[in-house]
Amino acid sequence: MIIVMRQGATDEQLVQVIGRVEASGFRPFVNPGVERKVVAVLGEVDTDKVQLADVFATMDGVERVQLISEPYKLASRHSHPEPTTFTLGLQPGVRPVTVGGDSLVVMAGPCSVENEAQIVGVARDVAAAGAAVLRGGAFKPRSSPHSFQGLGVEGLELLAAARAATGLPVVTEVLDPRDLDDVCRFADVLQIGARNMQNFALLRSVGERRHPVLLKRGPGARVSDFLLAAEYILAGGNHQVMLCERGIITFEDSTRYTTDINAIPVLKRQTHLPVVVDPSHATGDSEYVPAVALAGVAAGADGLIVEVHPDPPHALSDGKQSLRPERFATLMAQLARLAPVVGRSLAGQAVASAV
Amino acid sequence: MIIVMRQGATDEQLVQVIGRVEASGFRPFVNPGVERKVVAVLGEVDTDKVQLADVFATMDGVERVQLISEPYKLASRHSHPEPTTFTLGLQPGVRPVTVGGDSLVVMAGPCSVENEAQIVGVARDVAAAGAAVLRGGAFKPRSSPHSFQGLGVEGLELLAAARAATGLPVVTEVLDPRDLDDVCRFADVLQIGARNMQNFALLRSVGERRHPVLLKRGPGARVSDFLLAAEYILAGGNHQVMLCERGIITFEDSTRYTTDINAIPVLKRQTHLPVVVDPSHATGDSEYVPAVALAGVAAGADGLIVEVHPDPPHALSDGKQSLRPERFATLMAQLARLAPVVGRSLAGQAVASAV
Amino acid sequence: MIIVMRQGATDEQLVQVIGRVEASGFRPFVNPGVERKVVAVLGEVDTDKVQLADVFATMDGVERVQLISEPYKLASRHSHPEPTTFTLGLQPGVRPVTVGGDSLVVMAGPCSVENEAQIVGVARDVAAAGAAVLRGGAFKPRSSPHSFQGLGVEGLELLAAARAATGLPVVTEVLDPRDLDDVCRFADVLQIGARNMQNFALLRSVGERRHPVLLKRGPGARVSDFLLAAEYILAGGNHQVMLCERGIITFEDSTRYTTDINAIPVLKRQTHLPVVVDPSHATGDSEYVPAVALAGVAAGADGLIVEVHPDPPHALSDGKQSLRPERFATLMAQLARLAPVVGRSLAGQAVASAV
Amino acid sequence: MIIVMRQGATDEQLVQVIGRVEASGFRPFVNPGVERKVVAVLGEVDTDKVQLADVFATMDGVERVQLISEPYKLASRHSHPEPTTFTLGLQPGVRPVTVGGDSLVVMAGPCSVENEAQIVGVARDVAAAGAAVLRGGAFKPRSSPHSFQGLGVEGLELLAAARAATGLPVVTEVLDPRDLDDVCRFADVLQIGARNMQNFALLRSVGERRHPVLLKRGPGARVSDFLLAAEYILAGGNHQVMLCERGIITFEDSTRYTTDINAIPVLKRQTHLPVVVDPSHATGDSEYVPAVALAGVAAGADGLIVEVHPDPPHALSDGKQSLRPERFATLMAQLARLAPVVGRSLAGQAVASAV
Repeated sequence: MIIVMRQGATDEQLVQVIGRVEASGFRPFVNPGVERKVVAVLGEVDTDKVQLADVFATMDGVERVQLISEPYKLASRHSHPEPTTFTLGLQPGVRPVTVGGDSLVVMAGPCSVENEAQIVGVARDVAAAGAAVLRGGAFKPRSSPHSFQGLGVEGLELLAAARAATGLPVVTEVLDPRDLDDVCRFADVLQIGARNMQNFALLRSVGERRHPVLLKRGPGARVSDFLLAAEYILAGGNHQVMLCERGIITFEDSTRYTTDINAIPVLKRQTHLPVVVDPSHATGDSEYVPAVALAGVAAGADGLIVEVHPDPPHALSDGKQSLRPERFATLMAQLARLAPVVGRSLAGQAVASAV
Repeated sequence: MIIVMRQGATDEQLVQVIGRVEASGFRPFVNPGVERKVVAVLGEVDTDKVQLADVFATMDGVERVQLISEPYKLASRHSHPEPTTFTLGLQPGVRPVTVGGDSLVVMAGPCSVENEAQIVGVARDVAAAGAAVLRGGAFKPRSSPHSFQGLGVEGLELLAAARAATGLPVVTEVLDPRDLDDVCRFADVLQIGARNMQNFALLRSVGERRHPVLLKRGPGARVSDFLLAAEYILAGGNHQVMLCERGIITFEDSTRYTTDINAIPVLKRQTHLPVVVDPSHATGDSEYVPAVALAGVAAGADGLIVEVHPDPPHALSDGKQSLRPERFATLMAQLARLAPVVGRSLAGQAVASAV
Repeated sequence: MIIVMRQGATDEQLVQVIGRVEASGFRPFVNPGVERKVVAVLGEVDTDKVQLADVFATMDGVERVQLISEPYKLASRHSHPEPTTFTLGLQPGVRPVTVGGDSLVVMAGPCSVENEAQIVGVARDVAAAGAAVLRGGAFKPRSSPHSFQGLGVEGLELLAAARAATGLPVVTEVLDPRDLDDVCRFADVLQIGARNMQNFALLRSVGERRHPVLLKRGPGARVSDFLLAAEYILAGGNHQVMLCERGIITFEDSTRYTTDINAIPVLKRQTHLPVVVDPSHATGDSEYVPAVALAGVAAGADGLIVEVHPDPPHALSDGKQSLRPERFATLMAQLARLAPVVGRSLAGQAVASAV
Repeated sequence: MIIVMRQGATDEQLVQVIGRVEASGFRPFVNPGVERKVVAVLGEVDTDKVQLADVFATMDGVERVQLISEPYKLASRHSHPEPTTFTLGLQPGVRPVTVGGDSLVVMAGPCSVENEAQIVGVARDVAAAGAAVLRGGAFKPRSSPHSFQGLGVEGLELLAAARAATGLPVVTEVLDPRDLDDVCRFADVLQIGARNMQNFALLRSVGERRHPVLLKRGPGARVSDFLLAAEYILAGGNHQVMLCERGIITFEDSTRYTTDINAIPVLKRQTHLPVVVDPSHATGDSEYVPAVALAGVAAGADGLIVEVHPDPPHALSDGKQSLRPERFATLMAQLARLAPVVGRSLAGQAVASAV
C-alpha cells in the first residue's frame, strides 16, 4: 500500500500518518518526494487492507492511497499459479465433464424450463450437437414483478428428468438462500445470476456448500468486484467456482449489453478459476450470438453458456436471444474447428457422436 | 406497443405477426409504411407487456418492438398523479417525520454502528443540527469478505438506544430475507442497498411487510430498472417506498460514482414516490459531499441521506466519505437557506432548535 | 511517479528499471516490499512524465506505473492556487462581465442563429431576464451531414447585430481552424464544442489567439482528459479558458447525457479555471433544464450556458432542449435567490433592471 | 417516424401535431391508442428526418418521437445490400490489397514513425510475417501538449521509404485539414483518429478526396454516431471507407478501453462498409492484444490494425501496447489457422512466403 500525501501537507500530518501505520502493525517507509511525499506501508499483517486503505485516505494531509496487491487473495493467480480444474456431474447416470482444462465446455439450453417436452427435447438437441451441460431456469430473476417467474421446484424436477434422459449435468440459478436445499438436491451446478453477484447473503450461503458454482458478472461490476464476489464463495471453502462474462452495461445501445471481451484474457491472467462467456445475455439478440460465441473462445474462454429454444417466438422468456437447435448445431460445428486453433478440444464431441 | 417490421419483410411474415397479436387478445393496426411496415398493438389486456414485446421481437420479419407505456404501473405517475407522502417513526417516543411533501428530510449518521457511545453521540449531533432520521448500518454489505461485516443484531439494539436518546426514527439496511424479522423489530425504515436492488427474493420479502422502505438505486441500473425494482415492493402491497439516487458507475474515475443529478427531475416526473439523494456514496469523498448535497436539493429531491462520523479516520467503514458533525452542521445551515428557494422547509429544524 | 514491479520480478529486471530511471535524469528509490517491489522516481526533470510512465510500464517485470502528480501543470491549482478570473466583452458598446469571481454568469440564447429577428429578439429577451452573455451558433457541428449546418459568416454578422442591440458579449462555436479569423472578428468568446475537445489542431490554433475560450467537455472524456485539453490552449499562451460540463455518455437513457454534477466540485478543486454548466445539452430536454441549472449553481459552478428559443417547435436545431424566454426568466429569478446561498450574486441582474 | 403523444394529451395538441406533419410534406396516420395516441409519419420527402423528429418532439403534448429508419442512408445496408470492397495501394511499386472481401487484411506497424531504421525495419518484419499494410503515425494526436507530437512531413517521407522497401501500402493519420495535401501525397490510406471521429470539418475535407479512409470509432461514440460520421465522408463522394472498432470508454478499468466485440456483427449487419479491429488501442496492453485480435477475426472482422515495435520499452509512444515483431509473427500464424474457420484467408500470406 502506498500513501500519497497532498502537496503542502505539513510535517505534523506526515507524523500522524506514520504513527497510524505503525499502530496498524506495519512499517512506514517515507519516500523523499519533491512535489508530494509518499509513504510506503510495509510488512505482512493479517488485516483487511481495503479497509485500512480507507482509514489512511481519511487522514488529514493525505491525497490518496493506492493498494499494490489485489484485495482478493484466494481468487488470485499469485496465490494459486496453476489453473483450477474441477468436474461437473459426478454422480451415477451423468456424464462428467471437467472445466478449466484443455476441454472447451459448452453449456446450453432454454432460458426457462417450461414443461417436460420442452426441456427434455432441448436437452436431447443440445446433447446431440455436442453440448456437455444442460442449462435451464427454474427460479427466474425478472426485472418486472409482472413477468413469468419460473416453475420453481417443479422446474427443478423437470431438469432432473432431462438429465436422466441425456446424461448431461444440469446448471440452474438459485435466487434465494432459502431455496438452496432444493436446488442442491437437483442441480449439478449452482448458478448465481448477474443481479445477485453482490448479494452477499447468497454468496456466503453458496460458499458453505460443496456444489460447483457458475458466478455471473454483474452488468455494473468491474473485474475486481467480480473477483471479490468469487472470493466470498472461496472464503467459505467452496473452491469450485466458474466465472461467467455476460456483458456489462455501457452507453452502447445497439445490443442489450456490451460483451467485455477484454475481460477474458484479463481474468485468465488474474485468476486461476475457469472463465466462460454467455453470448446470449451479452448481446440479447440471437443474430449476434454465434459471432460473439466464437469470439469468446478465440479470446481464451474455457467454455460457453448459450440459450437454445426449440421455438423462440413461443418462449416464455428471452426468446429474442435464443438460438434454434439447428443454428446451435451449426455453431457447435464451427466451434469444433475453432477449438484446436486455440489449443483446445470440444468437451462433448465424443459424446455427441455416441448419441 | 409498436412492432416495426424489417425492410423487405414478406406479407406472410406480417400476417403471422398480426395473427399473434390477435391471439394475445390485442387488436393489430397496420400502418402503411413506405420503408417499413409498423403494427400498432391496441387494447387493454392484463398481461405482461415486457414479455409480450420480447415474443413479438423474436418473430421472423420483425425489426424491433417498442413499448409505448412504461412497464411499471404502480410506481408510475400516470396511475397515481399525486405525490405519495408517508410518515416515518409512527411509534411512541419517536418524532415522526413525513417524506414526499414540502418538508426536506435529512437522514444522517455513520456508515456502520460501532458501539453505543459512537452511535448515541452521532445521533445527538445530527439531531442537534436538524436531521430528522438517524442512519446506521448493522448488517453491512462489503465488497470483500475480509472486511468488517457489521455488528448484526447487536447493532440494531444500539440503534434503538440511539433512537430512545434522541427521538429520531432509524433507517438501517437489511441484506437477507432471513434477517427481516429482526430488522423490522428495531428499525423504522428498511433500507435495500444498491447491490441488492435487483435481489428479487429480498424485494418480495420486503414487499410483504408494512414498514417504510428506502430503496437505493443499483450503480448499474437505469431509471427504468430502478422503478421496476420499486414495483416489486409495491406489488406486494407495501406502498411506502422512497427512492434513493446514490451514484451510477461510469467511466469517470475522479469520484467513486457519478451522481445522476438528471435522475432527480426525471424520477419526480415519472413516479409519485419520494426521491432522496445520497451524496456520500455518490461521490465517495467528504470533500465533495456538501456541494452534491446542495445540488440534489436544488434539483428537487425530497431529502438526503448523509454519512456523519465523529472521527472519520477511525471509522470502521467509509471514513473517507463521512462528514464530521461540525461540517454536517454547516451544511444543514446552508440547506435551511436553500430549502425555501425550491419551495421547501427543512423537516428537523423546529426540532433542532428545541433540542 | 511510482513503478510497481510484478510479484516474482527478478533482480535483473529491477536493475534494468533502476538504470532506465537514472538514464532519464531522475533518482530511483527502491522500497523494500514484501509482495512486490516499488521504485519511486524522484527529482525534477523537464520531461513528459506521461510518456515516461508509458516507457517504464513497458519494461519486463513491471506490473504498472502510477503518476503521483497531475499531467497538466498549467491548468492545475497547484501551479496557480488563486482562481483565475477574466473579463468578457472588453470592447466599446459591450457590457463587460467577469467570470471566475463572485458573480454568477449566465450565458443564454438559441442553439442556432436563424435570422436577424430571431437572434435580436432572443438577445433582448435574455438580457431583460438578466443574462450576461449571448450564445448562438453560426457554425454547427451536427451528427448527420444531412442536418442544418448553420449560417456560417452570415450568422456571425447577425450575432454582432444582436450584440449591438443589447450590449451582451457573444459566445459562438468555431469548428475549423480555417474559420478562426472570421470567428475572432465577430465573437467575444470562442467556443470549442464537445466533439472537438480533443481536436488538437483546433485547440492549438485557439491557444495562439488571445480571445477568451469556452471549452466544452467531450461526452466520453474524463476530467483528467478535459484538463489536458485545456492545457493545450494554456500551453499556447491563451490563459482565458472557461471549462463547461455538458453531460457525459453513460448507460442511462432517460436523458440524452448524464450531467456529471460531481465534476463541478472536482474541477473547482483541481483547477483554477472558471467552471460553467450547460444544462440544455446535459439533459436534452427543456423540462429538466431548470432543475439541473439550479443544481449546477448549488454545486459551485461559476456560470451557466442555457439554450433559449422564442418558438422551440420551429427551431432549426435543438428545439427539444430550448427554454422559452418566459421560462428562462422564471429560472433567472430563482437563480437570483439561489446565488446568495452559495456566496454569489447574479452578474446581469443590475443590468437587467436597467434594461 | 412515430410520434407518441403523452397520456392526457388534448385533441387540440393532436390537431397541431397533425398539422405540422402535413406542413412538412408527410402524411399523418393516427393510431387509436388506449393509453396514448400515436401518429405515424408517412411518405417520402427529401428532408432531414433527425431534425424533423426533434421538431415534433418539442411540440406540446408529445411524449417522444421514434425514428423507424436509420438516419444514415449511404452507409446503410438497406441502400447497398452487397458488401463494399475496395483496393488499397493502387500505384506502381506497391502490392495492392483488397478489403471487404474474403481476404483478412492485417495492417501493422509502430504507433509513431521515429526514424528510417525503425520504420523500414518494422515494415520488413511485418511484411515477412504476412501483414498487408504498414501503419505508422507521422502526425500524432496526444492527450497532453507536452507529449511527442510526431515527425510530421518528415515522418510521411520515412513511411514512403518503408513502402518502397517492402511494397506495403501505407496508412497514416491526418489531424488537420490543412495537412491533407501532404498526407495524400504520401499515404495510401487516410486514417481519421478516434478523437476526430466527430471533427466534421476534417470529415468533410476527407470526403472531398478520393483516397481510401480508415475511420476510427470515437471512444464515446455509439454505433449509430459512428455510422453517421462515415456518412459525412460518403456524402462527399468518397465511398472507400473502412470502419475501425478500437475500444469504447466504460467503467471497467482493468484495460484502457473496452473492445466492443458485439459491434463487429452489428456493423456487419447494418452497413456494407468493411470493418476492422484495433486490439492495441482497445486493450492498451500488449499482453491482451493477441487474444483480442483473434476474437475480432472470429467475430467477423474484415481485418486488423496492430501496433508492432522492435523495442517497445524505447518506443516514443504506446510502447505498452506494442507487440514485438516475433510475437506478431506468432499471432499471424495463429490468424492464418483461424481465418478458414470463419471463411477467410489471410491477405498477405502468399506475399509473406514470397518475401
